[in-house]
Amino acid sequence: MSSSLSHRLSEYAAVASTLGVDAVALVPGPNFTRAIGQSFMSHERPFLLIVPADGPAAALVPNLELGSWAQVGFQGDVFDWRDQTGYGDAFKGLMDQLNIASLAVEGQVMRVFVHHALLAAQPELKIIDAEKEISGLRMIKTPQDVVALQAAIDISERALTRTLETIRLGQTEKQIEQMLVKLLFDEGADELAFGPIVAAGDNSARPHAHARDTYRVKAGDALLIDFGARKDGFAADITRTVFLDHVTDEGRAVYDTVLQANLAALSVTRAGVTAHEIDDAATRVLEASPFADRVRTKTGHGLGRDVHEAPYIVRGNTMPLPAGTVYTNEPGLYQIGKFGVRIEDDVLITEDGYQTLTKFPKDLMVITC
Amino acid sequence: MSSSLSHRLSEYAAVASTLGVDAVALVPGPNFTRAIGQSFMSHERPFLLIVPADGPAAALVPNLELGSWAQVGFQGDVFDWRDQTGYGDAFKGLMDQLNIASLAVEGQVMRVFVHHALLAAQPELKIIDAEKEISGLRMIKTPQDVVALQAAIDISERALTRTLETIRLGQTEKQIEQMLVKLLFDEGADELAFGPIVAAGDNSARPHAHARDTYRVKAGDALLIDFGARKDGFAADITRTVFLDHVTDEGRAVYDTVLQANLAALSVTRAGVTAHEIDDAATRVLEASPFADRVRTKTGHGLGRDVHEAPYIVRGNTMPLPAGTVYTNEPGLYQIGKFGVRIEDDVLITEDGYQTLTKFPKDLMVITC
Repeated sequence: MSSSLSHRLSEYAAVASTLGVDAVALVPGPNFTRAIGQSFMSHERPFLLIVPADGPAAALVPNLELGSWAQVGFQGDVFDWRDQTGYGDAFKGLMDQLNIASLAVEGQVMRVFVHHALLAAQPELKIIDAEKEISGLRMIKTPQDVVALQAAIDISERALTRTLETIRLGQTEKQIEQMLVKLLFDEGADELAFGPIVAAGDNSARPHAHARDTYRVKAGDALLIDFGARKDGFAADITRTVFLDHVTDEGRAVYDTVLQANLAALSVTRAGVTAHEIDDAATRVLEASPFADRVRTKTGHGLGRDVHEAPYIVRGNTMPLPAGTVYTNEPGLYQIGKFGVRIEDDVLITEDGYQTLTKFPKDLMVITC
Repeated sequence: MSSSLSHRLSEYAAVASTLGVDAVALVPGPNFTRAIGQSFMSHERPFLLIVPADGPAAALVPNLELGSWAQVGFQGDVFDWRDQTGYGDAFKGLMDQLNIASLAVEGQVMRVFVHHALLAAQPELKIIDAEKEISGLRMIKTPQDVVALQAAIDISERALTRTLETIRLGQTEKQIEQMLVKLLFDEGADELAFGPIVAAGDNSARPHAHARDTYRVKAGDALLIDFGARKDGFAADITRTVFLDHVTDEGRAVYDTVLQANLAALSVTRAGVTAHEIDDAATRVLEASPFADRVRTKTGHGLGRDVHEAPYIVRGNTMPLPAGTVYTNEPGLYQIGKFGVRIEDDVLITEDGYQTLTKFPKDLMVITC
């Protein structure tokens, strides 16, 4: 096993020790990719890596993936299974071999059919959800992680600049979205980090809106664009809200409130700040405004291999955030049926402050179109 | 509640009755989208629709989604929760209200953290994995479903035609992939159905390979392209394997074997055929060839809102397939370290036979480049 792979697996073994369980299980997804240095699909086929607190790791691998798995350099036992015979025996073989009584899993990644297959193989197995501890290993970004994130962000910002230049009154949200997607790939995205949100008018008040092919943007609309490229495994997540042709006084006041909340979050950001303190700083600005009833979300979330990952920037989360954490600073105000504004930056926490990886201007922007 | 929504929810109530459980639970994903007519994201936020065998449905909805949820026309009770306070109380409220003892879930969609939250709210709840029965409702496509699938396929085929015209020796797999992705959106894709596979030479022997930016395609390579557009919620899934500049006798023999297997699967396809019979027809051709040791996968899977869905076209699956089923016919032969060939069509089963929705030629193609 390569020394870098051994080293990374030993981090998961340490999580098992800390939690007092016999092993940690990983399934395809961001932790799996980080651990073994290569990404895999899963779909309907279970695929599992188990890292005990002590002793060698073992894996359950769909037979059709053995060719790719061979490149990983993994030296533990591999229990493969074929579509034609199913995976029951492979789970049994794996669990018999490992002889563990308790297992920590990624609750937000592992699906119930894998959970059930584990219990079918070993009915007494105690399974705990250790999403926080397992994914927590991704929280502090390495310098290489930051380089990849910055590349994803730079691609995204170039695509946004070009998209905004093409917007014309009367275009549908869907047309604007398609232009954005095309330009993201044109600028070098490997993938979309997620399906973009391009939402104008009343649709901008829905935090996770879908672009409509029935709505044509018109003068005075707020246009909210939440999107990101994925590059070398890392995801950008940026939101800007612009106004088309003109902005009302209310629009301006709402925008300014959200911007002040965004800046308030930054003003408390430095190594050691808690997630609670960041959310509280931003949310207090929103709550003290005339628009307090439009607060609908927490301030943000961690960002890295996954678009949403630890730490969650929410009141009550008293976790101190170390230097190297990257979070999204995305306060917003949403008036259902009317309009919404969100401004979202990607922020790297440093020892004595922060660095905003997003450089796109966030002054109020009225697009002439 | 709109009558179409009531009707669709009644289908899930009927699944609960048939299974002898008190209710069916749906989480964001293809079944959820089909049931309520709109798609939602979930990420770290639980979102749940519970449809009892008898009585009104109820939902657990993240507060920030209430604006979008209002458009669904759902009239059951809604338990919403906010990031700031967490979802424990909402699960408790939901489960107290429903008063159910057993629940059928989509095991390949629901993640473990939702499973655990359900049990935390009601420790005696019996949860069964009814992926097959719940997703089985998507198996027979409506005429509108087929129209959407055909649109996704047509977009994909136009993009493939244009991509093949641009391939030149010396390009990297990654460059070819980027061109394909760009052309998929240019042809009208809403999204990628999945991250495409563009794999040449030895990489083509990995059924789920990743495009490399280090490998330049060369004369004599097999080039396997497995990809699809998503349009109006439906996913295409097509594979073609072409040869660059020339093909060896072995390449030609392998290609012809795979093509004969693909045709053998079609030859037995009509309403009432079992999934076993289709896989067996194709796999017997492969096993009878000199390349029997290169068989690594089942013949295919259902296709629709999800890229991989029921029915799974695999020996032992004795489910008779009704007219309206769409499956991927994708036999392949993979020689690890050397090359692989896969030919994949999307096939609609009809009363007296089949209709291949993919029209792209599948005769052996040698690209002059």
